Amino acid sequence: MLGLTVEQKRSDALISNKQMMQVGIIVSDIEKSAEAWTNFLGNEEIPEIIVATGDDKNPTEFKGKPSDAKAKLAFFRLDNITIELIEPLGGESTWQEFLDTKGEGIHHIAFNVEGMESYIKNFGENGIPMIQHGGWETGEYGYFEGSNGLTLIIELLENYNQ
Amino acid sequence: MLGLTVEQKRSDALISNKQMMQVGIIVSDIEKSAEAWTNFLGNEEIPEIIVATGDDKNPTEFKGKPSDAKAKLAFFRLDNITIELIEPLGGESTWQEFLDTKGEGIHHIAFNVEGMESYIKNFGENGIPMIQHGGWETGEYGYFEGSNGLTLIIELLENYNQ
Repeated sequence: MLGLTVEQKRSDALISNKQMMQVGIIVSDIEKSAEAWTNFLGNEEIPEIIVATGDDKNPTEFKGKPSDAKAKLAFFRLDNITIELIEPLGGESTWQEFLDTKGEGIHHIAFNVEGMESYIKNFGENGIPMIQHGGWETGEYGYFEGSNGLTLIIELLENYNQ
Repeated sequence: MLGLTVEQKRSDALISNKQMMQVGIIVSDIEKSAEAWTNFLGNEEIPEIIVATGDDKNPTEFKGKPSDAKAKLAFFRLDNITIELIEPLGGESTWQEFLDTKGEGIHHIAFNVEGMESYIKNFGENGIPMIQHGGWETGEYGYFEGSNGLTLIIELLENYNQ
């Protein structure tokens, strides 16, 4: 179309934020992988490894049911994006399912949003159902299965303090 | 260590460029996936789908042997990174192997480099062997298997004109 480029946006985009925040990677041994990434990037120190558990305010749900899933996490900040390492620690989750069925590898890409509820509804109506939801005291996340042809898992993150 | 942060870099980083250029996604039906991504991002037009074949200057090699692998490609430019869709069209390749063993999903992350040869040598000596190499008239690519704990495939891209 004359004067239009592929970068021009329609008003019905499912995601308005085009800044990819994270690439999430499933690993089976986060201590080993955190060391490998530290060496690869040439960072001075291995990042802190934290354990993600459920939160009373945002309890973990996987495929609509409560889950006691836990995971170890480590983060590496690159110039334009953050790499998140995730070692599943059991319990039903998209992390554990990915490791069990596909093995180690890249699990998701993540975007920040405002108004998670409307995204859950809109994504669901467009063939991108939410498969896991949880959070922490000041924020929440949702994982969505790109069953409509996106062919990957998308994570949406909402930080209540921003 | 006093005064040091995790962002400070050692001199022996395996990758000096910390700008992630691409996330590469393996799909089985690129026409369907390109339409899904166009709708997801709210772009006006579905991007051109191109066919990547070998080049006389940079013939495709997979695991050290010549390959006649081909793939259909489509690109989506986000604010900070590009999404690359890849539909393998047969021939031995990391694309076809991924689709056959893991199914659709995120295949690699990519970085631009200068001096591919030294990266191939240095990555290989550090447990990140090259599994596929090829290119085009004015550039080349290599895919590297993060067997050392990175747990994913890294693509390095070199553009001779930059």
